[in-house]
Amino acid sequence: MDLDVSPLSLPFPDMPAIDGVTLRVARARYKQWDRCDLTYVEVAEGTAVAGVFTQSACASSEVELGREHVKSGSARALIVNAGNSNAFTGYRGREAVEQIMGQVAEHLGCAPAEVFVSSTGVIGVPLPKDKAREGVTNALTAEPCGWEDAASAINTTDTFNKGATASAMIGSTKVHLAGIIKGSGMIAPDMATMLGYVFTDAAVEPAFLQEMLSAANEKTFSCITVDGDTSTSDTVLAFATGKAAHARITGWDSPGADAFAAALHDVCRQLAHLVVRDGEGASKFITVRVSGAVSDDSARKVGLAIANSPLLKTAIAGEDANWGRVVMAVGKGGEPADRDKLSIGFGGVWAARDGLPVEDYDEAPVADHLKGQEIDIAVDLGLGEGRASVWTCDLTHGYISINADYRS
Amino acid sequence: MDLDVSPLSLPFPDMPAIDGVTLRVARARYKQWDRCDLTYVEVAEGTAVAGVFTQSACASSEVELGREHVKSGSARALIVNAGNSNAFTGYRGREAVEQIMGQVAEHLGCAPAEVFVSSTGVIGVPLPKDKAREGVTNALTAEPCGWEDAASAINTTDTFNKGATASAMIGSTKVHLAGIIKGSGMIAPDMATMLGYVFTDAAVEPAFLQEMLSAANEKTFSCITVDGDTSTSDTVLAFATGKAAHARITGWDSPGADAFAAALHDVCRQLAHLVVRDGEGASKFITVRVSGAVSDDSARKVGLAIANSPLLKTAIAGEDANWGRVVMAVGKGGEPADRDKLSIGFGGVWAARDGLPVEDYDEAPVADHLKGQEIDIAVDLGLGEGRASVWTCDLTHGYISINADYRS
Repeated sequence: MDLDVSPLSLPFPDMPAIDGVTLRVARARYKQWDRCDLTYVEVAEGTAVAGVFTQSACASSEVELGREHVKSGSARALIVNAGNSNAFTGYRGREAVEQIMGQVAEHLGCAPAEVFVSSTGVIGVPLPKDKAREGVTNALTAEPCGWEDAASAINTTDTFNKGATASAMIGSTKVHLAGIIKGSGMIAPDMATMLGYVFTDAAVEPAFLQEMLSAANEKTFSCITVDGDTSTSDTVLAFATGKAAHARITGWDSPGADAFAAALHDVCRQLAHLVVRDGEGASKFITVRVSGAVSDDSARKVGLAIANSPLLKTAIAGEDANWGRVVMAVGKGGEPADRDKLSIGFGGVWAARDGLPVEDYDEAPVADHLKGQEIDIAVDLGLGEGRASVWTCDLTHGYISINADYRS
Repeated sequence: MDLDVSPLSLPFPDMPAIDGVTLRVARARYKQWDRCDLTYVEVAEGTAVAGVFTQSACASSEVELGREHVKSGSARALIVNAGNSNAFTGYRGREAVEQIMGQVAEHLGCAPAEVFVSSTGVIGVPLPKDKAREGVTNALTAEPCGWEDAASAINTTDTFNKGATASAMIGSTKVHLAGIIKGSGMIAPDMATMLGYVFTDAAVEPAFLQEMLSAANEKTFSCITVDGDTSTSDTVLAFATGKAAHARITGWDSPGADAFAAALHDVCRQLAHLVVRDGEGASKFITVRVSGAVSDDSARKVGLAIANSPLLKTAIAGEDANWGRVVMAVGKGGEPADRDKLSIGFGGVWAARDGLPVEDYDEAPVADHLKGQEIDIAVDLGLGEGRASVWTCDLTHGYISINADYRS
């Protein structure tokens, strides 16, 4: 199935080379296609790694092994298979992952546990070991490539290549961050629900890298949703090669820790937004800003209840300022809310204040706002100081078309 | 918007008159339409009433008042307004409901709290008091009508009229139950997410009627979902006029209690299924049967996670036995599950057993099954004895069309 490029796509940015990171891609031909579908990233000795993984109770072997091995904090390589998620494939799927880890480890002379593997695609078909072996062999010796080649090779139903970059000053040393991501459906919270990878030349203690990544995840990947469905495979990994010439960042007291954390957050936010922009069938990028909740966590849950509501998402697709559906979604969220303190606005115009429709509400500027591609929904619960932003896309005929046909 | 009749519709059944129940309908013209949109049901003095209501934190005044007044267990009348939900309308909405209660109470010489009111339609527009007053005046003096006229008058986006009936023997006395229901979108669990009314001539103690209705609700209305969205207004009420000549049913030890509870459950199940059959855009009726869960409640939650998954619902629309999406939905449900004990089948054929694809899985009979209108999905978690059935419909272009345009 050839999909049209999302109308919300952004051009692939100029991305810096990251010292200590080498990208290669190859054809494993996991599906009947003529494109690179196996990505191999070699990272320098001493690279720190951190990760966040799907909360699914039916996670793939890749996730199970990655979650275990990330605890050591040490990485040498990443392999990403596109076209087959290898999820729900039992011991046969696990054998395929272990084969890949062993093959790369032998090549690099490292421990298999330092090789991280992700797979994305159809569930329930064991990753073919012969194709994996041949693909990895080709990738290990391929010419190095650039970020967009790698971003393209990890895609499945994605309609555009997704990358983001940022930099930070650690003392007088500039460090760079570069990230790529894939994902367009099966996107929901409770964690990094896609495959995303961030690389940096900064020197960071693994435990603190994990702390910063987890914190960034809470306000970025965990605040996006396309369809409320959580994948069995999704993973975000951060690799810090330590090639930059600055004192190692070990905690919040280290010079440059705040600047680096901000840059990491920035890259994660950009990547998360790109996934929403490639949401299956998306025609509008929706920001839901919730304030006045009893806590930030409560605000996020209310935001996600709104962002996951099919009725709200279809209303936005229809360019209808149907704030009644926002009320409905707030009501069903299970979080503290008071009908008579609730305010709802679109594009900076309040449609309802304190539980009542605004008397002289002028729908014209709201109607104009909803005709655009960037939609802003504000909800104030009037209860406390908790706030959160959540991002999603509208629900259109495109989503149905893509998902009623996929898998052939 | 004129909608095509659902392909899953059933003909309206022959429904018995219920002694002590009189139906009337009238035109309040809550919308620009030429149809009856106000339903008035008078029930005999001494009628017992029970109810279950939406769990929404933003419930309408109708729900707030109904939830309070049902505690008395006594009813004389029901008014249903179609075309305006009167939800999120603050004190003005509440005044309109109190006006209706007062007007009917004066006519019948009863307490206003014995008059139950429901409203369904757009949120956020106060119910116009003048139209309500005139509509009620007309309804109070209209000629009595039959069940299908009443079932039709409570509809909004429904595409067919929905009714169900059952009977039970209480000793040597046959009692009758007749129910009507409306609802096709904004259907989700955590309660009776629609407007449904069951009437019977049986004599039942109100507290026990409530107990039986709540129990039936748990396995019927709370086990259906169309889009996972919970309305601010939804309500199921049961009225027992006590006109039948049998000893009053006061508890499980009363003669005929089991038979009556079974008949009530039967009517509730039929009504719940009819709502799914009129699910917006539905082309297939899906039964999800979950077994092997750690408890019945856990089984129901897993079933609802599957039934609410847009990816699963679009796969069924596409007649694709994509059991990987069932794995995904089980995984995201948050309930105990073990990937390596999970079995999944369609139409009586296992596609995966104990965490692995079935070796000689023959997709042909499954493909045939999925071409039909009645889809059966079986999930065995392999953990315990808990089981539940959940019902939903597929997600099609029709849902998008209806919901991107509604409200005009």
